Amino acid sequence: MTFSRSSSISFFILALFGVLINPAISSRVSSFIKLPSSVESRSSDVSYCEGWRLAAETNNAGTWRVVPSQCENYVKNYINGGQFDKDYDVLASYAIAYAKTINLAGKDKDAWVFDVDETLLSNLEYYKAHGYGSEPYDNTLFNEWVVKGNAPGFDASLRLYKALKKLGFTIILLTGRDESQRSITEKNLRDAGYFGWNRLLLRGHEDQGKAAAQYKSEQRAKVVKEGYTIHGSAGDQWSDLQGFAVATRSFKVPNPMYYIA
Amino acid sequence: MTFSRSSSISFFILALFGVLINPAISSRVSSFIKLPSSVESRSSDVSYCEGWRLAAETNNAGTWRVVPSQCENYVKNYINGGQFDKDYDVLASYAIAYAKTINLAGKDKDAWVFDVDETLLSNLEYYKAHGYGSEPYDNTLFNEWVVKGNAPGFDASLRLYKALKKLGFTIILLTGRDESQRSITEKNLRDAGYFGWNRLLLRGHEDQGKAAAQYKSEQRAKVVKEGYTIHGSAGDQWSDLQGFAVATRSFKVPNPMYYIA
Repeated sequence: MTFSRSSSISFFILALFGVLINPAISSRVSSFIKLPSSVESRSSDVSYCEGWRLAAETNNAGTWRVVPSQCENYVKNYINGGQFDKDYDVLASYAIAYAKTINLAGKDKDAWVFDVDETLLSNLEYYKAHGYGSEPYDNTLFNEWVVKGNAPGFDASLRLYKALKKLGFTIILLTGRDESQRSITEKNLRDAGYFGWNRLLLRGHEDQGKAAAQYKSEQRAKVVKEGYTIHGSAGDQWSDLQGFAVATRSFKVPNPMYYIA
Repeated sequence: MTFSRSSSISFFILALFGVLINPAISSRVSSFIKLPSSVESRSSDVSYCEGWRLAAETNNAGTWRVVPSQCENYVKNYINGGQFDKDYDVLASYAIAYAKTINLAGKDKDAWVFDVDETLLSNLEYYKAHGYGSEPYDNTLFNEWVVKGNAPGFDASLRLYKALKKLGFTIILLTGRDESQRSITEKNLRDAGYFGWNRLLLRGHEDQGKAAAQYKSEQRAKVVKEGYTIHGSAGDQWSDLQGFAVATRSFKVPNPMYYIA
């Protein structure tokens, strides 16, 4: 590229007007070259999908089964385009700032509870192959992915986790995964960079069929009964954060790909 | 403009590359002509502010005093550019869909609780003149605005309100406004298009100084004690929706301009 600045600017302005005033050209350009998503016009679909994602993240949407079909591409762009990472990063900064305000009582009873899937471990590779949440959940296929044990951590969750460890919090992992997946989950977590958790709680026989919020509340209640204070928790599902024996502060990790009641 | 399509496309592609590969040119172009916001490059500020807004809406941000200064323009664009209206509209659709699933017990005891400011009435005109929430809250100035009684309703809140009335819900309005502002508030609500509420609850003498969540929970508890079922509630603050005597389902109305503990 050997444009002079001024000719490049002139070209740009002229071409931009040409494109902006003529929707037919604009759509042909869009199909001809792939513009970065930030340059694409904000379509009504994107506007709806932004609203849908906010409704899902704030729990206004209630129970939802799949990503709306017109939002599959939107979710894909959100996840892969950097905004998801930024959103999680901003959350991690708030959580760390909060954690720093806590005077730890000591005796290792100052707890922080983490969910695992889409909170510490990313199953994005699986969801990429399954329409970014626009296909109905398939338990068999998902478990085939889980036992591979290849899920990476998130940069933001690793940062938060390590900061909490350094501050002296006792880390408790609480997942909807089955007890039979204990060793692969532990190995996967270690491979992803996590270390030194106090315990990993998985669904046992007696927990089968329980709603997630009920199961997770019961587990937290046992932890509290042992004398722990749950200062904070982080989870990508509202069912990680609501119910009883909830943390003093709960952090909702963004996840526009699936909902667990 | 007499470009042929192909030359326009060529110009556009060449110019786009010239701009994309050279940040100095990109920033000079941006300052030279005002691009529509959908065509602007997504700056790191916008990315941060998106993350900040999500953190605020999901309550991950906890207590916050003002909109971060680098996000004033972002909030302005979000509010005025149509996405805020879309977000509220999507929420209203979810709330109406939920309301339609409820079998009303009848006897006028099926309640829905609405907050007033930024839920039914928009104080945007006030906040436009005060940095879209980037300036600290000024109680005196805000009350001078309130007593003018000129706040309009939101399209989405009017749609939701009317749908709930039609379905037969008893509407209870619960606001942090002072009892001394009762008549101007009632007049403003009627002028904005609301009608037929069961009661408007305002802060009395005994409520002064109470945290919003405590005051609103106490008021809801009294309503429940009278035999009402609070099926739903809508508010732009988490303190409208949390505490005790909460609704079966609560809807968080978007508000990136201020936070009330």
